[in-house]
Order: sequence, then C-alpha cells, then structure tokens
Amino acid sequence: MPMKTRELAQLLDGQAHGDADLTFERPTHPDHAGAGDLAVALDKTLLARLSDSAARIALVGEGQTPPEGSVDAWVSVGRPRFTMHLLTRHYDIPPAISPGVHPFAVVEDGAVLGEGVAIGPFCHIGRGARIGDGCRLVSAVTIGADATVGPGGLFFPGARVGERVTIGALAIIHSNAVIGADGFSFGPPEQGAVESAKASGRVDVINEYIVRVHSLGAVTLGDDVEIGANTCIDRGTLDDTRIGSGTKVDDLVMIGHNVKVGRMCMLCAQVGIAGSAVIGDGVVLAGRVGVADHITIGDNAVIGAGSGVGNNVPSREVWVGYPAMPKDKAAEQFMMTRRMKNLFKDVSELKKRVRSLPGIS
Amino acid sequence: MPMKTRELAQLLDGQAHGDADLTFERPTHPDHAGAGDLAVALDKTLLARLSDSAARIALVGEGQTPPEGSVDAWVSVGRPRFTMHLLTRHYDIPPAISPGVHPFAVVEDGAVLGEGVAIGPFCHIGRGARIGDGCRLVSAVTIGADATVGPGGLFFPGARVGERVTIGALAIIHSNAVIGADGFSFGPPEQGAVESAKASGRVDVINEYIVRVHSLGAVTLGDDVEIGANTCIDRGTLDDTRIGSGTKVDDLVMIGHNVKVGRMCMLCAQVGIAGSAVIGDGVVLAGRVGVADHITIGDNAVIGAGSGVGNNVPSREVWVGYPAMPKDKAAEQFMMTRRMKNLFKDVSELKKRVRSLPGIS
Amino acid sequence: MPMKTRELAQLLDGQAHGDADLTFERPTHPDHAGAGDLAVALDKTLLARLSDSAARIALVGEGQTPPEGSVDAWVSVGRPRFTMHLLTRHYDIPPAISPGVHPFAVVEDGAVLGEGVAIGPFCHIGRGARIGDGCRLVSAVTIGADATVGPGGLFFPGARVGERVTIGALAIIHSNAVIGADGFSFGPPEQGAVESAKASGRVDVINEYIVRVHSLGAVTLGDDVEIGANTCIDRGTLDDTRIGSGTKVDDLVMIGHNVKVGRMCMLCAQVGIAGSAVIGDGVVLAGRVGVADHITIGDNAVIGAGSGVGNNVPSREVWVGYPAMPKDKAAEQFMMTRRMKNLFKDVSELKKRVRSLPGIS
Repeated sequence: MPMKTRELAQLLDGQAHGDADLTFERPTHPDHAGAGDLAVALDKTLLARLSDSAARIALVGEGQTPPEGSVDAWVSVGRPRFTMHLLTRHYDIPPAISPGVHPFAVVEDGAVLGEGVAIGPFCHIGRGARIGDGCRLVSAVTIGADATVGPGGLFFPGARVGERVTIGALAIIHSNAVIGADGFSFGPPEQGAVESAKASGRVDVINEYIVRVHSLGAVTLGDDVEIGANTCIDRGTLDDTRIGSGTKVDDLVMIGHNVKVGRMCMLCAQVGIAGSAVIGDGVVLAGRVGVADHITIGDNAVIGAGSGVGNNVPSREVWVGYPAMPKDKAAEQFMMTRRMKNLFKDVSELKKRVRSLPGIS
Repeated sequence: MPMKTRELAQLLDGQAHGDADLTFERPTHPDHAGAGDLAVALDKTLLARLSDSAARIALVGEGQTPPEGSVDAWVSVGRPRFTMHLLTRHYDIPPAISPGVHPFAVVEDGAVLGEGVAIGPFCHIGRGARIGDGCRLVSAVTIGADATVGPGGLFFPGARVGERVTIGALAIIHSNAVIGADGFSFGPPEQGAVESAKASGRVDVINEYIVRVHSLGAVTLGDDVEIGANTCIDRGTLDDTRIGSGTKVDDLVMIGHNVKVGRMCMLCAQVGIAGSAVIGDGVVLAGRVGVADHITIGDNAVIGAGSGVGNNVPSREVWVGYPAMPKDKAAEQFMMTRRMKNLFKDVSELKKRVRSLPGIS
Repeated sequence: MPMKTRELAQLLDGQAHGDADLTFERPTHPDHAGAGDLAVALDKTLLARLSDSAARIALVGEGQTPPEGSVDAWVSVGRPRFTMHLLTRHYDIPPAISPGVHPFAVVEDGAVLGEGVAIGPFCHIGRGARIGDGCRLVSAVTIGADATVGPGGLFFPGARVGERVTIGALAIIHSNAVIGADGFSFGPPEQGAVESAKASGRVDVINEYIVRVHSLGAVTLGDDVEIGANTCIDRGTLDDTRIGSGTKVDDLVMIGHNVKVGRMCMLCAQVGIAGSAVIGDGVVLAGRVGVADHITIGDNAVIGAGSGVGNNVPSREVWVGYPAMPKDKAAEQFMMTRRMKNLFKDVSELKKRVRSLPGIS
C-alpha cells in the first residue's frame, strides 16, 4: 500500500521536504530503488548515491539534504537506528502461517495450546508442553515434553526446544537453534589430564575412562529473548541455564551448561560461553568472543570481536584480545609490538657502541 | 520417589550423618532447593550457602561439615565428579518416547529395525538402513540409506545421519548434529591461489574456476560416542572420517573430511579440525581449539581454549596459544609481553646514558 | 560395475602401465583396499603404502612408479586435484531419492514445481515458492513462501530456505544450513555502549533498552553455489545479502546481514563475516577466519586460518594473524617475539655494563 511522504514523516517523527504528497511503495537501498520506491540514505555515503538512484523520494539524516535534483521529496530524521527500527517494523512481512494446527503436525496428549496458536506442518509438541497464546510455529518445530512457552512466541523451521525448557513471552527462535541439549560434562572419575595440565603444565595422568554427568536441569529464557539460527543453549546440571529478559543472541552461538546471562545483553555470532560462566546485565559480546568456564563478566561490559576472556571482567569495562585485557592495555601492547623492530635495532646499536667504549673488553 | 539419607549414602558410597531416615525428593542447587530437596554442595562456595538454603539434607565433600544448624542430615563423599555421575545418572529423566514406529514416521523398504526400537514422528529411515536394538529416535531424525546404527543409540530431534554412515553402540547424537555431509574439497584444477600464498606469500595465480572433489567415503563412529548439538562431521574422500570409541564431542564442533579422532577424547564446543588431521587417543581439545589440516596430535595431549594448532603436538604435551606452542613457552612469551613496557624504558634510558658518555659523539 | 585399467586411463587422461585389462570395483585408500579395488596413491606417502596394500591396481602421480611387485597394473596422471575431481565424480553415489512428491510432503497452494522435481518426506514448500527443474529435496527440507530455487539444486535433510530467498541453478545445500534467518541488528535507540566503547574505550552510556531493526531484505545466491552443513546466511536489512556464482561455503560458517561475497570464493569451516562486509571475487578465507563489519576484502586475497580481519585487505594480498596483517609482516613479528628472550638478556647485560662504566653514577 503506497505511503505519502508526509505520512512517512509522521511515522518516523521526521520532517517532510519537497512534494509531500508524493507516494512510494517500499523502502530500499538507493542502488536498488525503482522510481516508485523510497531510497533510504541515512549516512553520507548513501546520500551521495541518491544522484544515481531511480528513486524520487529519499529518507535522510537530520540536517542533511539530498544532492541537487536527485529527488523530488525527502524526509529528514534524527536518531538513525531508532528510525530504522520504526521503518522496518512498519514494513516487516510476517511469516506465512495462520492460526490452527496443521494436519501434519503432532500434538501429544496433555499438551496445552493457547488461543490463536499457529502450528505448522511437521511440528511436534510433546506431552505436557504448554504453548502460550498467539504463538506461531512456522514449520518443523519441536517442543519437548513438559516445556513451557510464553505468549506471542515465533519459532522458525527446525527450532528445537528440549524437554522441561521454559521460554518467556515474545520469544523469537530462529531456524535450527537448539535450546536444551545436554551439557558437556565429562571427565575421568578422579583428577585427570586436564587438572594435571592446569597444575603442572604436563599430562601426568591420562584419561583412562570417562564418566558422564547427566543434565538434570533445563534452560530458562526470560521474556523478549531472541535466539539466532543454529545457536545452542545447553541444560544446567542441577539448576537451569538462564538467559535474562530482553537479551538477544545471534547465530551459531554456544552457551554452555549452568551459564547465567543477564538482561538486555547482545551476544553476537559465534560467541562461545563455557560452563558456569556468569554474564551480567547489558553486556555486549562482539562476534566470536570466547568466555572461559566459571568466569564472571560485570554489568554493561563490552568485549571486542574475537577476544578470549580468561579473567573476570569488571562492570562497564571494555576488554579485547586473546587473552583479553582492558582495551587501553591491549592497544599499548599492540603499539609496542609494532615498534619492536626499532627496539631490536636500538639494542643492536647499543651493543656495538658499548663494546667500542674505552675500558670495555 | 523419596529417598532416605542412608539410601543416598549407599548409592554414592558415602557416609551418612545426622538423621539418616530423613527423605528428599530430588537433588538441586542449594539456592534453589525447597525443604524437601537435597542440596548438592560439593565445593566450599556451595557449602557456605547451605546456611541460606531451605533444604534439610545436604551432599558435601569428604571431610566437610555443613554450617552449624544449616541442615538436619548430610552425606559426605570423596571423588566429586564420580559422585555427580552416580547421582545424576540416578535422577536422569529419559526422553518421552516409547518403542514402536510413529504413524508419521517413514521407514523405507529394506530398512531393518532392531528389537524395541522407538521411532518418533517425522523420522525418516532410508532404504537399507539398519537400526540396532533399543535405539530411540525422539523426533524428526533422519537416517540415510544404507547407514548402520548400533544398539542402544539415542537420537535427539533434527539429528541427521548421512547415507552409508556407520555408528557404533550406545551413541548419543544431539539435536541438529550432521554426521556425513560432504567434505569441503575444492580447488582450481592445477596449483592455485592457496598454494601460491603458501609458497611465496603472494597470490601469483588466481582461482579462475574451481573443481569439486566428491566424497566417496562416509563417517564411522565407534561405540559409546556422544556428538553435540549442531556439530558437523564430514565424509572422507576415499576412506571414512573416523571417531574412536568413548570419544565425546560437544556442540558446534567441526570435524573435516578424512580426520581420524582416537578413543576417549574430549572435544569441547566450537572446536574445528581441518581435513586429514589425526588426533590420538585421550586427547582433550578445550573450547574453540582449531587444528590445521594434516596435523597430528599425539595421545593424551591437552590443548588450551582458543588455541590454533599449526604444528604437530607430541603425546602428553600441553599446548596453548595462537599459534599454539608448549604451555611453558607460551607463558614465558606472555610474561615477556607484559614486561615489554619496561624494556622500552630501559632501552630509552640506556640510549640517553650512552649518548652522554665521554668519547661518544 | 568393474572398470578396466585402460578405461581408467582414458577417464583420467592418464597412462596405463602393466596389465591394462585388469579390472577393479571402486577406488579406495591403499590401506583399506581389497584385492578387487583400485588403490589411489597420488602422493609419495601413499605410494610407499602400496607394498602393504591388497590392491592389484593403483593410481599414481605423473612420473611415479609403484614399489616393485606391489601391483600388477597402474595408471599415472598429472594434475592430482583435477584427477581426483574426475575420479570421484565418476564414482559419486547420488542420494537415494526419485522424482515425485512424497505423500508426507506439504506443497502449499501457489507453489510451482519444475519438471522432474523430487520432494522427499517432511519437506515443506511454502506458498508461491518456485522449485526449478530437476531439483532434489532429500528429506525434511523447508522452502519458505515466495522463495525461488533454480534448476538442478540438491538439498539435504534439514536445510532451511527462508521466505523470499533466491537461489540460482545447481545449488548444493547441506543439512541444517539456514539461508535467510533475520539479521542481527539491535541496539539502543540512540548511541549506546558499543559506540561509547569504540570512542573512549569506556562504557559511559549503558544499553537501557534495545530496539530491533527488522530484515526487509532476503538472501540471493548465484549459480553453482554450495553451502555447508549448519551454515547460516542472514537476510539483509533493505537489500539482499548476496553470494556470487561459483562460491563454495563450508560448514558452520556465519555470513551476516548485508554481506556481499563475490564469485568463485572459498569460505572454509567456521568462518564468520560480520554485517555489511564486502568480499571480492576469488577470495579464500581459511578455516575460522573472522571478518569485522563493513570491512572490504579485495579480489583474490587469501586470509590464513584463524585470522581476525579488522582492516581492509587489498586485492591479491595474503594476510594472517589476530589482528590480521600482511603475511610477511606477521612472520616478522612472530620471529621477533621468538627472539624477545634474547633481547631481554641483551638489555639486562647492557645495563650492567653501562652501570659499571667509569663516570656513571
């Protein structure tokens, strides 16, 4: 449904310029926009591309103006990320599924489905599971026995929710994510190779055989949690592994057994958190951060991409590197490494000079 | 079913203290225990928490005593990991599936199912596949044509077993694990960019087009192997990729084509082993270890978290770092890096002093 | 079907030696070959093993000769990788599926299936989706509404193709790969913790609440693209995330939203490419390379295993390390780090000497 430029300004709390009655179909990238599209150009690189764009309407940042003659109308807005949130929310296309249970779905006896629930083909709801009002299970989703899912959840094809797992309201679980596989808790019956390696740096004891510690706990996700595709969250041993409300987890992330992640965290792709680590509220782990077992990361800390965290991180600190350390320290080390060549030269020079001094043999 | 304190002592080969006839329902974490639960407090941190726990019965380490008045009965045990094994095994809840083939499962002609096999909904057993006695396929499991699975296996929803794959007895395969995708074996028909980069450090030849080497081999897992959620084990080119008996693999692990992993290894989450590497028996690869192609890691070696192994590792050695090196050498380098700032100062000071010496221009 | 030695020579454009009428059943590794097999021994290590192999026929590299008496016939060939391509292509076993739609598959109204398409059990084809001629969906494959798949595609069990995704001709999509999950685009409505960490190295602003930028774009794959098991390719925000023709992607790879990958690239296992990065044509990313958001990697660049790329890489360069840098520079730094111990000794010695000089207090 076409939208007028003036309506867009209203939606985004922005200002309309030029012909405010012009309409567009959908927002797009300036390079791919047709004459009927809105070209979204919220940064300066994109702004310049408007000259070559077919679009007649643009969305630009506060105080910015499209190149002369490039468009006939534009809306300017502050707060680009919030604008993108509002804009994309408006144009988001919901998945193609309607309420009801598909004839090729299996809902076991004792499962309870809320009002308006949509269960697509090849979904399997275990006995005693409870699915909250308005949940949508697009296709091939598995909900284990006695699991509980809050209202408004959206589950993409292949999402696996284990038995006795608890998921809060408004969850979004992407394809092939696995919530509630068993924790990886194995070892020799007594002290073994790993303990020996840690203590002495050598392997004095070998792992002749390995015992399994079973996972009696499950996983609990708070409200408004999003879990990325192919991400794994393992069960706890006695207690549940827990993810706080509002936390967002990207694809291919590993969250080990007994881990506690706080509220409103962002865990980017390929992050790995080993068993029993504790992540505070508001923490940001950039792509592929690794966190060792039993580590604590304080509230609102930010860890840079690819870092390996082997020490506790205080609140609000910024750490990077492998091994991770405070950012300024890491930067200093990096700079020193770059200057090491000069250091070698200086020392070599000094040696020559000192050797040539009178009184030095 | 409630258990008496004295029965717990018997189960765990421990000693009962206090009111040995007191009963509990289930073992839990001290912080989450109710009055009818067993509080498991095998380390000192947890022991202290017993004061605030609602539980009346505790499980503690050998020689330890709960805080005065915190509980009415307790069992003390040695060997905490083995105790956890025994305890959690007793209380483990089997998945909700019973023998038989679900009407929404597909078993192709020529597939052979053992005694007491349980095949849940949306499972697909390919033609000629053989499923051993007592196997449980919880839901949505795929077993490819001519694959063989030994007795007692447990397959969680979404596990994918490729055609002609062989799996031993007592396997546990977690959700969405993929055993038997094709190996990643591509390259230009002749020497290409990678060979050029390795030889000269430059790209003198570009990959104009790429040919595919197909995977004629499959994957063979020994007995008592566990494979984590979303883990991938690729087929071999001519021979099978092989994992030895007793080896445990965590979630999101990559095992490339032609790799051989020995017996009784532990491969933690997000480990990656490139093509044709050979991992001995009893090896421990901590979280996110990477192993380059064609590398050999000797028996019972231990590699620290996040390491990148680009050289062969002798038996029983402990290596860490990127690039990985023996642990003591890595520790030395790390210490030197930390002291580098002083080194720069010292050299700067020396330069000044030497410059100021009589007879130095 | 048995093949004669002379037929093998013809197939591989090689030369037959010895009894060219001898036949074999299948190519195998020399160590696992039976008397009726072809032992493939294209490198010198394998050549030596022919002495202990049961095989009577071997395939060897150009100019190489099997050990005296080890076999009765052999074929010698140049270009080992191309030979392996030809050989394995000939012996590759197609998946066990025939044209037609399985009664336990769901094809929604408005989906269009090409000629000779094979749709296995538990596959779900969304409304408006188009599946090209000759595509094979082995089992439990999901194709979202309005997605388009070109002719000749092969989809393994559990592959997930999101709504509106476009896939070219001849695609191979491995098990549990997810093409078209939502991009991970979250943040506070205004500048937040990450911006603060980047600017000042401290977290001066915390993420009180997080907004979601929805993914209006989809994913577009070119022709002849292969995607590995459990790999994720996320949707773009406004435009599609794009992978060029001929590009091959291994297992457990993460490709973030808005990323553009060129033609004929090879992305090895566990690679991660963050949002909006641009990867040129012919690029090779070795195992577990990480690429930061908005980075550009030039055509035909090669990045070494485990590297973390935080800067733009020019065409045809070879970079390695964390952080990644040109290979010769990284090698120099590595060598200097190894010699650092001597540097400390030298400086300590110099200090002693200078202190002992006459006229130095």
